Parts: sequence; C-alpha cells; structure tokens
Amino acid sequence: MTARIREFLRNRRDDGPCMVLDLDVVRDNYHAFAHALPDTRVFYAVKANPAPEVLALLASLGSCFDTASVAEIEMALAAGATPDRVSFGNTIKKERDIARAFELGVRLFAVDCKAEVEKVARAAPGAQVFCRILCDGAGAEWPLSRKFGCVPEMATDVLEHAHRLGLEAYGVSFHVGSQQRNTGAWDQALASASAIFRECAERGIHLRMVNLGGGFPTKYLKKVPEVESYGEAIFRSLSRHFGNRMPETIIEPGRGMVGNAGVIESEVVLISRKSEEDEVRWVYLDIGKFGGLAETMDEAIRYPIRTRHDGGPKTPCVLAGPTCDSADVMYEKEPYLLPVSLQIGDKVLIEGTGAYTTTYSAVAFNGFPPLRSYVI
Amino acid sequence: MTARIREFLRNRRDDGPCMVLDLDVVRDNYHAFAHALPDTRVFYAVKANPAPEVLALLASLGSCFDTASVAEIEMALAAGATPDRVSFGNTIKKERDIARAFELGVRLFAVDCKAEVEKVARAAPGAQVFCRILCDGAGAEWPLSRKFGCVPEMATDVLEHAHRLGLEAYGVSFHVGSQQRNTGAWDQALASASAIFRECAERGIHLRMVNLGGGFPTKYLKKVPEVESYGEAIFRSLSRHFGNRMPETIIEPGRGMVGNAGVIESEVVLISRKSEEDEVRWVYLDIGKFGGLAETMDEAIRYPIRTRHDGGPKTPCVLAGPTCDSADVMYEKEPYLLPVSLQIGDKVLIEGTGAYTTTYSAVAFNGFPPLRSYVI
Repeated sequence: MTARIREFLRNRRDDGPCMVLDLDVVRDNYHAFAHALPDTRVFYAVKANPAPEVLALLASLGSCFDTASVAEIEMALAAGATPDRVSFGNTIKKERDIARAFELGVRLFAVDCKAEVEKVARAAPGAQVFCRILCDGAGAEWPLSRKFGCVPEMATDVLEHAHRLGLEAYGVSFHVGSQQRNTGAWDQALASASAIFRECAERGIHLRMVNLGGGFPTKYLKKVPEVESYGEAIFRSLSRHFGNRMPETIIEPGRGMVGNAGVIESEVVLISRKSEEDEVRWVYLDIGKFGGLAETMDEAIRYPIRTRHDGGPKTPCVLAGPTCDSADVMYEKEPYLLPVSLQIGDKVLIEGTGAYTTTYSAVAFNGFPPLRSYVI
Repeated sequence: MTARIREFLRNRRDDGPCMVLDLDVVRDNYHAFAHALPDTRVFYAVKANPAPEVLALLASLGSCFDTASVAEIEMALAAGATPDRVSFGNTIKKERDIARAFELGVRLFAVDCKAEVEKVARAAPGAQVFCRILCDGAGAEWPLSRKFGCVPEMATDVLEHAHRLGLEAYGVSFHVGSQQRNTGAWDQALASASAIFRECAERGIHLRMVNLGGGFPTKYLKKVPEVESYGEAIFRSLSRHFGNRMPETIIEPGRGMVGNAGVIESEVVLISRKSEEDEVRWVYLDIGKFGGLAETMDEAIRYPIRTRHDGGPKTPCVLAGPTCDSADVMYEKEPYLLPVSLQIGDKVLIEGTGAYTTTYSAVAFNGFPPLRSYVI
C-alpha cells in the first residue's frame, strides 16, 4: 500500500471492486532487478500485468519483454519496445503465430521439443531458440507443473535439431517455480544448464545464453528475501558452474516486478454462520476466484488483507467470493483471521495484487464485470 | 454434436477456438423438464449460459429465470421475461443490488442467514424469501462446498426472522450438487424441507414453496439417467414427505438445460514428450482452464473429446491449455486417451460444453481473447 494508492482510493467514486497499481513501485522494482543482476537483461513477463502504462514505463526504462502470444507481442511493441527486445517465451505456439511474430521482427523463441523446433524453423528461419528444461521447483510457494520444459537429458538433442534446421541454438531456460523463496533454487538448474552447454559444445554447437526465468517473489504474508540476495546467489551459482566462461543471462520477472505495486479494494457483502454453533464465520467479498483472485486456487497464494478494524481481536473466517459458484471460495482449509468487528459494507484492501489478477478475471461470470484496473 | 453444429463448423472461417450452441437442443431440454416435472416451475440458471438467444428462447417457451446478479436480472428482462418470472437466487447480495432488483420488479429472493434477511427487509419490503439449506451432495460429480445455505436446524429461525420483518417467508431451497447422477439425492433434502415446513407451521408461518435447485446432469463420458427418472424420483419423495399437502415447486436447471447443446472446437497446438522414455504424451490445445474449461479444475468434469482419428488405437495423454500458466492443465492425474495418430494442427471437438464455459473464460489472460460463442 502506498500513499498514492491510498489517496486515489479516497477520491474514487466508481462502484465495485478494483485494482489500483502504483507505477512508482514498478519503477523501483525494475531498478532493484537491474541493480541486483547488473549483467542480466530483464524480460518482463507481460502476462503478469499487461496494462499499457506498465509496458510503456518498462519500455522507457530499457526493459525487454517475455511474451506468451501474438497479442502480447503487439502490446509490447505498441508500448515502445523494439522487436529485438521481445522474446516469444511460450513453448506452445501455433505455427501461424510464430510466422506472425517473425513478421513483426521477433527473433527469439522458446522451445522444449523437436516438434516445436520444426515449427520455428519453418515459420521463423534463422531465429534464435532456447530450450526450456524441467526443474523441480522445490522451495516455491507455487511449484510449477511439468507443463513446460523437457528433461535436461533431452535438451541437447532438441538444440542440435534446431542447429541442423538452420536455427541458432542460443541457450537454455528454466523456471524455478513461482514465488520462489529459496535464493539457492537456481543452483541445481544452472548445473544442468552448464552440462547442456558442454554437451552441445562437444557436438560443435556453442550456446551463449541462460534464461534464468522468473520466480522472484512478492511479499504476501510471509517475509521474502530481497532481490539483492537472489542476485548474489545466482551470481555465485553461475560462477560455480560456468567458471570464467560466463554466459549471457536473462531474467523474466512478472510477479516480482508488479505484484507489490497493486492493491485490490473490495467490499464485504455478507458475514454469516452456517449454524448457531459454528466458530468459523463466512465472510463474502465482492471479488473472488473468478473476479481476479484465481491464484487463491488450492489456497496457493495468501494475500495480506487490511481492514479499518486492524489491531483489534480476530476470529477465523472462511473467505469466499460473490458468485453462485460453490468453488468460489478463497480460504477454507486454512481459515483466514479477520477482525471480530468486521462488518457488512466494510471496505477491505487486498495487498500484493498487482500481478496475475486483472487478466485472470472472468469475462462476465454470474453477470459480474471483469476486475476494473487503475494505473496511477 | 448435432448436424446443425457440424454444418456450422464446416462453414466457419474465423480463427481460434469457439463454442457453438444449438438452440434446438435447448428447446428439447426445456420440454423434457416441463414434461418430467409438470407441476414444477422451471427457473433457468442464467449463469450456466447467459447468451441472449438462449434467454430469449427460454423466455418465449415460458421459462422463469434464476439470477445471480443485477446484470443477469437485466438480461432476463431484456430477453422478454416479466419480473415475476425472475428469482434473485444468490444468497450473497449487496443491499443496493437488492434495492435495484426490487425497483426492477423482482419479488423473490434467496437468503441463508438473518443478516441477509435484514438486507432484503430493508431494500425489498414485503418480498418473498426462501431459505437455502445445506445438503450433503453425495452422488454428485461436483459436490458443492458449504458456501451456500445454513444447517436445516437454523432455517426456521431465519424464516421466522423474515416473517417478523414483514417479508413473506415463502419456502426452502437446496442444491443436491452439480452433475448429480443419483436420482434419489433429493429425498434427504426434502425430508429436511418438510421438517422446516412443520416447524414454521408450529410458529404460525405457512411456507408454500420448495425450490429443488439444479444438479440435473449433462452427459459427459459416463451415462446419466433421463430427466423422467429424476421427475419420478422427486415426485415420490415429495409425496412421501409432504403427503397430500404438496408444496409449490421450482427447479433451477443450468447445466441440464444447455450443457449438451454446446460443442467447443479447438486446435491441437503441440504434441510432445517430456523425455524420450515417457509413455504419456502431452497434448496442448488452443483452449484451456483459463479460456473456458474452468470446470476441469481438480479434473472434476471430463468432457468427451472427438477427433477425426476416432476408432484407431489410443494412448494416454496429459491434456493442457495454451497459456504460459503451469496450472493450465486439464487432465493429468488421470490421463486422457487420445488417438495415436492425432497430429499438431488437428481440430478436436469438446462435447457437452454449452454450460459454464463462455462466461468462465478469462478476459485476456496471456493475451488470448475470451472464448468466442455462436448460438445457432
């Protein structure tokens, strides 16, 4: 929460939940990354928050962009990025989307299997590709599934296939898991990356780049390490595994760049009990899983919630959204402590909601409009 | 899949995934409900699919509407329903939304606690309310959480509170769980409802209505009973618990009204393996959890998927969506059998997707547009 956001909300007259994002915080975050990892290029993960104001600010600061679709590429370009600063980082691309990206000037593509390499070779001849490898994600609050990447043992073949098809086998990428609180999590993946560099070199292919991915956390309820600690730990691991043949590096922060810049204001719609004996109250907000808080699925992300009653006694509450969908419950297995004096009609502030909220919002579920967003 | 949908898709020229819904099927479903439960008023659950064409058809057939928000009320009215045919069935309502509904002529509201009764009494004086009770949902493919309803023991107090505040304590509602395949599931809840009728009568309050909710299934992979069987089972339970003092009844089908009327056409974007040894292939579609298939969460709903290779040998596949979100995986714990000869670029048809798809779709996650819908 910043003074600017507080001021904005005080003067807001619109009705309904909203997310307010403070660009000053994004600017600070960008500088913190640039300072902590001075030799690393920052590719902002557009999917975290593609607001045009965010993209324009980051473009002006010199950021590059990690994109998931042609629409995101177009947004990055519209914000002022040149195509050499855009990576098509999704390993799952339609061939016609690769062709469109190539037409727009993009020359950097993610792959994780030979079939994807073949699409890139046909639709973006001569482009640079990096191969994503699987990574166990231990220590992450939101460990990733096996959806992206191949086992490290397969990466050399994938990159060699790219090389043979006339692409530039440029490097290796991985992702240590979202909201990664262990600064040492990059070490194991960097060991794998370094092995792939060696194997490729033995086949006459000289990789140059390691994409360190995202995973940099936002502070929610628990304390997280500072960006500097990540920078130091990553630098140590890079030195350990690559010695004096340091590769180019890329990071792709999304949550770490915008998460703490945003706050959602929501209203308490109902507080009830299911029976006279219930000790846990049910608190229903006007935003839920389908209105922007999708990352509460499996109660993965626990956002800090501020109310005007903070400081007083608290009781455990189940926190749920406003829709007629019974799955629209944010915290139930581990109830959330909220003030006893919280009332229907109160506003609450949900912090750390600058990333992965507005675009996750359902288009019109239950007739509720998508989450409104203000960038200030 | 109907001949009309097949014909439409053959002639479609737009790109990207889409859902096509055949109104003839919706008409048949409406008549099946009306026939199976001749003395019951049908309140279509608008949230399942609020397409204007669907609402207009159902309004013309005489259907009433169960709504979750003011926006849905307005849609039902715009489709031709009079306000006496609209229920504000969400137990979680802002007081100003109740007032707005009352202004629009709505006189029927759901409640499940005294706090909500008080809001309705202030904002919709004299209106009819029904109290939702909890129900265990055994036998449902998607049992509901405890989000809606109070324990049956509390309902009499809630209804008495309504009565004292000048509202008409009109009845009881419950929901036996979504995609309920046990036709007997209504019996236990009707026993509870009948007890509440008796307790209220002892306090001088004469309830008149039982809202039997939804839960009527759509055929996905497993066979489901016909609507007639539900009608017969419900009628038997009503007779058992209410004898010759039969209450008015309401049903709120959503999935059962539109689920089997819709088909999603999607494209295979990538097929890969994570390692050379993997026996399970990964199949990535251009639609996923955030593009309309939200009900695959926890692999709850397993949609039938048709391909042009059906009939040939199949292999287990993990099925995932196109976004850079690692949670965007539909079926993994229990892999989905798909043809060995399935290829990148193939179209697949996902059946039974007329309900809970288009409006669940994220507004622009990863830059992907929301699911397009055609009503024919």
